[in-house]
Amino acid sequence: MRISELSAASRVPIPTIKYYLREGLLPPGEQISATRAVYGEPHLRRLRLIRALLEVGRLPLTTIHKVIEAVEDEQLGVHEMLGVAHYALAAEVEPGDPDDEEWRAAREQADTLVEEYGLRLSPQAPTRDELAQVLVTLARLGVPASADDLRPYAEAARRLAAEHEMSRIPVTGPRDAAVEALVIYTVLYGRAFDVLRRMAQESASAFAAEAGS
Amino acid sequence: MRISELSAASRVPIPTIKYYLREGLLPPGEQISATRAVYGEPHLRRLRLIRALLEVGRLPLTTIHKVIEAVEDEQLGVHEMLGVAHYALAAEVEPGDPDDEEWRAAREQADTLVEEYGLRLSPQAPTRDELAQVLVTLARLGVPASADDLRPYAEAARRLAAEHEMSRIPVTGPRDAAVEALVIYTVLYGRAFDVLRRMAQESASAFAAEAGS
Repeated sequence: MRISELSAASRVPIPTIKYYLREGLLPPGEQISATRAVYGEPHLRRLRLIRALLEVGRLPLTTIHKVIEAVEDEQLGVHEMLGVAHYALAAEVEPGDPDDEEWRAAREQADTLVEEYGLRLSPQAPTRDELAQVLVTLARLGVPASADDLRPYAEAARRLAAEHEMSRIPVTGPRDAAVEALVIYTVLYGRAFDVLRRMAQESASAFAAEAGS
Repeated sequence: MRISELSAASRVPIPTIKYYLREGLLPPGEQISATRAVYGEPHLRRLRLIRALLEVGRLPLTTIHKVIEAVEDEQLGVHEMLGVAHYALAAEVEPGDPDDEEWRAAREQADTLVEEYGLRLSPQAPTRDELAQVLVTLARLGVPASADDLRPYAEAARRLAAEHEMSRIPVTGPRDAAVEALVIYTVLYGRAFDVLRRMAQESASAFAAEAGS
């Protein structure tokens, strides 16, 4: 298809497509004359992925570049590629000062919890710092969280990830589609859970209010 | 205690305390002379609550005003007061245009899910629009979510809310403390779960990669 058709099919404006081509985010089309190129399914898939990374993952373009590089690096196994995308989705955490006693304690507690819950994580996983940041905030507010406090959350997370999430990522199809699915499930189902949890809290509170009256 | 001691105990600077007094967020101290007032435990508790609403809830001052009004309105039952705080924590959602076919369908689906999952929610609960927004995004990306897709999330949320969350809110003690606990559990445990879920995803992926190799 021509660039105008690619634009119509992807709902991405032509100038934006041209920008992605210049930036190397989208591979060039097949040149069929000096002034005309044609595009195919892989281009459509790539545009879907870029849109998901931008609109759902809310990632900056420099981070999107890194994810696309991993997608295009066929030397990289599927799981390594997914790992790059997954780490890109981590919240920006100002890693704490290692000389700060509170931060060091929180970061150690995070590592201990990872081990205790049987999570298999890279030592470099950015989620370790993210968890430490939540722990340090709870401690500063005077309500430190213990391993038992967080265990029901870790258990629920483990079940959802193992039974409902990772199995939905199409790891044998096109690499773009696998990363797109990962972004969608990680971010949007995460947001859905956050809403459902607040709904469940209101509901539990309504039942409690009734029982108490 | 004097204002300087209140500042030391709460770690809130004196000018900030004076600002809260002027704004009516903090009730006045007991005037013991023309130029001196003393403060007590309730003031400390209120400062803790304001800090939680600001730093954890990241709420704007106008919203914090509304929450504090609910705390001070003793006519309001504890559960109604908690409801005000809970709604204040909802994400800002631009409610969709009711003439937009996609939005209307998503909002209807959200209401149907609430009923299907047996959640007892006010018709005005802002979480309904929040859920609709996630549903419309999934549909636009070509991966609409069904009731079955979201059921495991609703189930996990229900269990956490009923067994681990609402029971921790001290509904019989000081009203400030109940709202503070609600903010902390809703926001920080929500953040903790989000991190634990991404940890569990990496872990599940590591096990899958090993099984596949």
